[in-house]
Amino acid sequence: MTTHLRAVAHPFLQAARRMSTGAGMPIRKVTVVGAGTLGSQVAFQTAISGFDVAVLDTQAESLSRCRAAHDAFAQQYLAREGPKQARAWQGLASHSTAKEVAKAALDRLVYTTDAAEAMDGSDLVSENVPEIVEVKAATYNALSAHASPETIFTSNSSTLLPSQFAEATGRPARFCALHFANGIWDANIGEVMAHPGTKPEVFERVVQFAKEIGMVPLRCHKEQSGYIINTLLVPWLNAAQTLVTKGVCTTEDVDRAWVICFGIVNSDKGPLGIMDMIGQGTAHNVLKYWGANLPDAQMAANADYIKKELLDKGKLGLCGGDPDKDKATGYYNYPNPAWKNRDFLNGTE
Amino acid sequence: MTTHLRAVAHPFLQAARRMSTGAGMPIRKVTVVGAGTLGSQVAFQTAISGFDVAVLDTQAESLSRCRAAHDAFAQQYLAREGPKQARAWQGLASHSTAKEVAKAALDRLVYTTDAAEAMDGSDLVSENVPEIVEVKAATYNALSAHASPETIFTSNSSTLLPSQFAEATGRPARFCALHFANGIWDANIGEVMAHPGTKPEVFERVVQFAKEIGMVPLRCHKEQSGYIINTLLVPWLNAAQTLVTKGVCTTEDVDRAWVICFGIVNSDKGPLGIMDMIGQGTAHNVLKYWGANLPDAQMAANADYIKKELLDKGKLGLCGGDPDKDKATGYYNYPNPAWKNRDFLNGTE
Repeated sequence: MTTHLRAVAHPFLQAARRMSTGAGMPIRKVTVVGAGTLGSQVAFQTAISGFDVAVLDTQAESLSRCRAAHDAFAQQYLAREGPKQARAWQGLASHSTAKEVAKAALDRLVYTTDAAEAMDGSDLVSENVPEIVEVKAATYNALSAHASPETIFTSNSSTLLPSQFAEATGRPARFCALHFANGIWDANIGEVMAHPGTKPEVFERVVQFAKEIGMVPLRCHKEQSGYIINTLLVPWLNAAQTLVTKGVCTTEDVDRAWVICFGIVNSDKGPLGIMDMIGQGTAHNVLKYWGANLPDAQMAANADYIKKELLDKGKLGLCGGDPDKDKATGYYNYPNPAWKNRDFLNGTE
Repeated sequence: MTTHLRAVAHPFLQAARRMSTGAGMPIRKVTVVGAGTLGSQVAFQTAISGFDVAVLDTQAESLSRCRAAHDAFAQQYLAREGPKQARAWQGLASHSTAKEVAKAALDRLVYTTDAAEAMDGSDLVSENVPEIVEVKAATYNALSAHASPETIFTSNSSTLLPSQFAEATGRPARFCALHFANGIWDANIGEVMAHPGTKPEVFERVVQFAKEIGMVPLRCHKEQSGYIINTLLVPWLNAAQTLVTKGVCTTEDVDRAWVICFGIVNSDKGPLGIMDMIGQGTAHNVLKYWGANLPDAQMAANADYIKKELLDKGKLGLCGGDPDKDKATGYYNYPNPAWKNRDFLNGTE
């Protein structure tokens, strides 16, 4: 399902029955609340990673659809992993077959509309209900009534902030966000965001849990609407839409421009790697110009940051140089910047 | 130098001595004004595409650096095309060798600080001087004094608009922007932008010229600061920078998030293709929410556009479906959207 090269345990590749005890906070059973598109993915990924999973939804039909989705995910897993395992395990007798792994995952999943049953013995909650403040708050209230004081609560939200629900969980110190991207097997990020009252050990425990279910954990140290990926995505999509809305050019030329310039050649760099390539002097000038002319205070602050933290320290970026050969510094050090390291996407720096 | 698959004449691959007569506007000699990084690239690409090129700069040292860059470009061309041509032309006697092509390109280039000499017999001007209004205006005034009334003027600017200089050129009807991206061989786009007084035939002639020198022409029908690629790039880089400036997460996690979610798997889609994938209902809701809450009037207008032009017409996008199999409509039609077509990047739709 994925085309990324990862050295970390990959989604779908962890299958031993798990009893995870990081930092004295054992996690064996996970409750996934809300059986929609993303909740279903989180539940299956957690189960195939070796955890017991209870899927809780107020609607029985949602649970039926979720169960059907899980059967389909198991088939996809088999189609992909079966042939690989047969090759990898030639001559080894002790491993489970892909078929056994998939069956065990489905066996670890239970589906219920009963909050008490879903929360019984639960060590961690992943909340996946709609992005409506009142619905989320009511959900946390209801769950809290059935939860052990030790249970860690996480929210899979990217537009609402954990501090908005910390009190409703009844355990603010044991609550943070763990946000997944749709298509959890291809886009296997886990954005972990604390609110000011989250205990650091709980935050790190959730980071570890994200790794245990095959996600690349991305630590958000401050609350930020949109977390990381939607903070990047929304203004970019909005700019594309602006070109169309204003009738500047065709939709095809919008997409063509991006793909020609950045879609393939530079696919190994993210935006800050691209910023180094362009050069931090240019990045500064552009942000300063637009910050003053739009006006846009955050853009102006970004220009000031680049001046102070990069330019004034001689970190000018690569400025069109060769990342394999040229000596330069910016957000990355050249030659051989971190983003060229094959482990970069694993988050092991 | 490029990794794109293109069916169109590729940069570096057109080498016949050219006398282009599209729409009764012959182009044989091109004057490239400003011998900086991008001007040097434009000049070489134009020469190797078969046009006579005069490079004009006020600084003799700039011309020296440009000439050295051209020698290096010719070596790069030889290193890449020589072996290919040897294979492709096996048994054919009539083609020029790569060495002859490169030599002919260098022979077509002249370098001068004399505006009269550079403009003598010039059919098209590509202005590449610094992005300072007064400098550009003075340049156009000086060039205009030596130009035939028929000469087409183009500006390689992406932050300033052609209407700002239309009068200074002395030929507003024969003036528009033709903006290139840095790294013209990899990012071979030519953004063509008219001002309200540009003659449509001149606009199309410049589009054709862009094709003749191996660019994928992108037509901008209205003036827009940043044209297409920088309109997309600036808010995206700015959002990345905002995460760093605010201390939300590490620079590596910013880049990692993007590359994992969109850098590889979806590199064949541009932003509007990605918008279809996410679903236009979601795109609408997100833009409406942020448009109201930031507030951001353009974002709100973008949401309204999506509702009226897409959602109200049942164009809901792919919504996570399979672009190879699922029937759906959004900005593209599924299955088999235009961006999957191997000719998509050639601009032939």
